[in-house]
Amino acid sequence: MENDILIINSTILPLAPDMPELIRQGYVAVKDGIIAALGSMADLADAAGAEKIIDGSGRLVMPGLVNTHTHAPMILFRGMADDLPLMTWLHEHIFPAEAKSVNPEMVYWCAKLAAAEMILSGTTTVADGYFLENSVAQAFIEAGIRSVAAQGVIDFPAPGVPDPKRNVAAAAEFIEDWQSRSPLLNPAVFCHSPYTCSPETLQNAKAMARRKNAQLFIHLAETRAEVEQVREQHGTTPVRLLDEIGVLDKDTVCVHCVWLEQEEIEVLARTGTRVSTCPQSNMKLASGIAPLKEMLAAGITVGLGTDGCASNNRLDLFFEMDFCAKIHKVKDLDPTALSAATVLHMATLGGAGVLGLENAVGSLSPGKQADIILLDIIQPHLQPFYNPGLLVYGASGADVTTAIIGGKLVMQDRKILPFDVNETMIEVRKMAESL
Amino acid sequence: MENDILIINSTILPLAPDMPELIRQGYVAVKDGIIAALGSMADLADAAGAEKIIDGSGRLVMPGLVNTHTHAPMILFRGMADDLPLMTWLHEHIFPAEAKSVNPEMVYWCAKLAAAEMILSGTTTVADGYFLENSVAQAFIEAGIRSVAAQGVIDFPAPGVPDPKRNVAAAAEFIEDWQSRSPLLNPAVFCHSPYTCSPETLQNAKAMARRKNAQLFIHLAETRAEVEQVREQHGTTPVRLLDEIGVLDKDTVCVHCVWLEQEEIEVLARTGTRVSTCPQSNMKLASGIAPLKEMLAAGITVGLGTDGCASNNRLDLFFEMDFCAKIHKVKDLDPTALSAATVLHMATLGGAGVLGLENAVGSLSPGKQADIILLDIIQPHLQPFYNPGLLVYGASGADVTTAIIGGKLVMQDRKILPFDVNETMIEVRKMAESL
Repeated sequence: MENDILIINSTILPLAPDMPELIRQGYVAVKDGIIAALGSMADLADAAGAEKIIDGSGRLVMPGLVNTHTHAPMILFRGMADDLPLMTWLHEHIFPAEAKSVNPEMVYWCAKLAAAEMILSGTTTVADGYFLENSVAQAFIEAGIRSVAAQGVIDFPAPGVPDPKRNVAAAAEFIEDWQSRSPLLNPAVFCHSPYTCSPETLQNAKAMARRKNAQLFIHLAETRAEVEQVREQHGTTPVRLLDEIGVLDKDTVCVHCVWLEQEEIEVLARTGTRVSTCPQSNMKLASGIAPLKEMLAAGITVGLGTDGCASNNRLDLFFEMDFCAKIHKVKDLDPTALSAATVLHMATLGGAGVLGLENAVGSLSPGKQADIILLDIIQPHLQPFYNPGLLVYGASGADVTTAIIGGKLVMQDRKILPFDVNETMIEVRKMAESL
Repeated sequence: MENDILIINSTILPLAPDMPELIRQGYVAVKDGIIAALGSMADLADAAGAEKIIDGSGRLVMPGLVNTHTHAPMILFRGMADDLPLMTWLHEHIFPAEAKSVNPEMVYWCAKLAAAEMILSGTTTVADGYFLENSVAQAFIEAGIRSVAAQGVIDFPAPGVPDPKRNVAAAAEFIEDWQSRSPLLNPAVFCHSPYTCSPETLQNAKAMARRKNAQLFIHLAETRAEVEQVREQHGTTPVRLLDEIGVLDKDTVCVHCVWLEQEEIEVLARTGTRVSTCPQSNMKLASGIAPLKEMLAAGITVGLGTDGCASNNRLDLFFEMDFCAKIHKVKDLDPTALSAATVLHMATLGGAGVLGLENAVGSLSPGKQADIILLDIIQPHLQPFYNPGLLVYGASGADVTTAIIGGKLVMQDRKILPFDVNETMIEVRKMAESL
C-alpha cells in the first residue's frame, strides 16, 4: 500500500510544459496529498498498490481548474435580476438585496453552495473576494476546496465593517487570522475598485498586503463609464493611476481589464501585474471585450474568472473557457485568435500563476499538490474525442465525475463527500424565499 | 387510465402566449401523442390516472427545444480540426475527411449519435441538411426524434449524387420517398449556398419544393468573403440575388444571415422568409455576429441552430441560447439588447415557426404534440431558481433528465430508450479511428 490513491487505465492530460500532451493508457499515483508519480500503465510497477484504487477507464484525468475571480456569496442573487441596464441592476436590485441579506450566516451557506457548484464542475482552486470573508474561509475549508480568500475593502460602510476607516485594518486582521491556519487557504485583500477606494486606501491596503506577503485583488477598467469616472476624478486612466500610486506588482491581480490602452498593457507587463479575465460577466453585463490577445502577447500572466453569480450566472469554468475562446475569435474575425490550448492553459497553470500558486497546482507534475479531476468522455456529446480541444468546445462541468484536492477525494460519481449539499441548498433556498 | 402519461407535482413552463408564465405545482397529461391537458395540481381530477405516472417533484417541465439547423453526420468531424483559418479548415481538413468517409453507413450511425446527443440535451425537433439524407431520415425515425430532413443540393459531384445535373431530381425523389412515411419527419431540400449552387439550380430546387409543399434551406450571407464572391459573380448581394430569382418566401429558411444590409433585412421581412441563426458557429469560425436585434425588430421569425459539429462543436441548444443572449449584449454594449425570454422563445415556439411547425410543437398547449422535457433544477448550479431566465444563463443540456416526443418516452433518467447508444458510440469511434 505505497500510495494513498492510484488512478489507473485512464487518459492523462498533464497540461505540464515538460510532459507529453496526452498519455493514452496511464496512471496517476497520489501520496501524502502530493502527486507521487504519473505515466504510462506499461511503466507502473506490478507491485504498485494504494489504499484507494480508482479505475479511470473511459475517463480523462487532468489538473483541477483554477477560478481566479468570484464573489461566492453572491450565489444568492443568481438570476434575481437579468437583462437590465447596469445602473438599474446595481442600484435597484443588487445593492438593496445585499443591504437586506448579507450577514455571516448568508455568507457561510452561500459560499458553501458555491463551493459545491465549483467542485461539481471541476474547479479545485478559487480566488474569492467579498465582505465577511471569515465566513467564506470557514465554508471553503469545510468544503475541502483550495482558495485565495480576500477580505473586501471599500470606502463605504460595509457588512462587518460599519466604519470605513477600519476597512484596511479589518483586512489585516483577516489575513493574520487565516495566514497559517490551513494549507488549503491563502488570505488576501480585495479592494473593490479605483472609484470606490481612494488612492490613500489603495496605498494603505497595498502596504499592508506587502508586509504580510499577501495578494491584493482589484476590479479594474471593467466599463467605459469607470474609465471616464477615474479620468474625471484623477485626471488619468485606471492602470496609470494604480501605477502612479505604487499599487502594481506581481502580487496584485487586476480583474476584468476590458478598457485598456496599449500603453497600459505595457505597464501591466512591466510591473509583472497579474490579470483575471471574466468573459461571460463582461458579455452579460455588456461591459465589453478585453484585449486578451494583446495582454498575452505582452507576456502578462492571465487567468480565467467566472465572476460572481449575479453577473454570469454560473461558476463553471468549462463554459468560461468556451466563451473566452469564441468571443476573441469573433472579435477579431480570426478563428486563430485564441486557441483551445491557450484557454486550457489559462484555466489551469496560467490561473495558478495569477494566484502565485504555479509551483503548487495547475498541472499534473510529480511533487505538486494532488488537485485532480476526472471526466467521463464516453458520452454522446464527447465522441469522437480526437484531442483535448474538445474540453473547451464540447465539455461542460457536468462531465466531471471525480475531484481530488490536496490528495483528498472531495467528489466521487458526482456526489460531494465532505458535506451535505442538500442541507446547503435548503438553507440557501430559505434565504432566497425571504428576499 | 384515461391518459397515457401524467406528469405530476412539477414546475411547468408552458412558453405559450395564452398561458401563465409558470405553474408552480402543476401537471401535464398526455394522450395519443398529444398534450391532453395541463394546469395546477389543485385542478387535477382525483380520478385522473395514466398508464405511466412521472413524479416531477424538483423538476421543471417545458416544451422540447427546436434546433433549426444542423448537419448531423458531421459529428464524425467534431474537434478534428479547430482554431484554423476558414479555408485551411475547409480545404485541408473537412473536405478531405468528407471525401474519405461519407457513405450511407457513416451518415446513418453519425446521425444516430447526433440524435442521442440532441435528445440528451433537450432537443426534440431538429432540421438537418446533408447528403445521403435517406440515412439521416432512417436514423432519426429509429431514434424517435422529430425532424425536418433536407437532402443536400450542390453543383458538384456529391455523395450519393455523382452527377450534379441530377441534384434537384435526387432531392425530389427523397421528398417523395419520405413525404407520408412518418408523422415525425417532414422531408425538404437543402441548397448549400449561393456560391455553390447556380441561380438555375436554386430556381429549379425552389420550383420543385413549391410543387411538393416542402421547405427549402440555404446557407446565406455567412461570411464577408461570401458576400464579396456573390457580388463579383452576380453583381448583387446574397439576399437580393435570392429575391430577384424568386427563391424567398415563407417556406424558405435562410441560415446564418450574418452579413446583411438593413434593406436586405426588410426584404427578408417582406417576403416572410424565415431565418436560422447559429451564434456559436459564427463565433468559432469567426464569421461575424448576425444583426439579430434588427431582424427581430423587422418581424422576421428567427430560430436557433447549432450548425454541424465540425463548427460548434456541440448540439446543445442550452449553450446556444446562452451564447446568443450574451454575444448580442456585448455586441451593442447593451445588457437589454436581447433578453432571456426572447432567446427561450427562439429555441422553442420561434424555432417551431421557422420550420412551419408552430401549430404542432414549441409550447405546452392542449392539442399540440407532446414534445416535452424535464430538467432537474434541484442542483447546486440551479439554486436559487428565481425565474426561467436561469435556463438560459445557468442550465445546460446535462440538466435534462427526461424527454418525450410525440407522446413517446425517448429518454428517462438520462438513458436513451429507443436504441443502444453504446453500440452507436462504438460504431462512430471505429470510423473516427480509421480517419
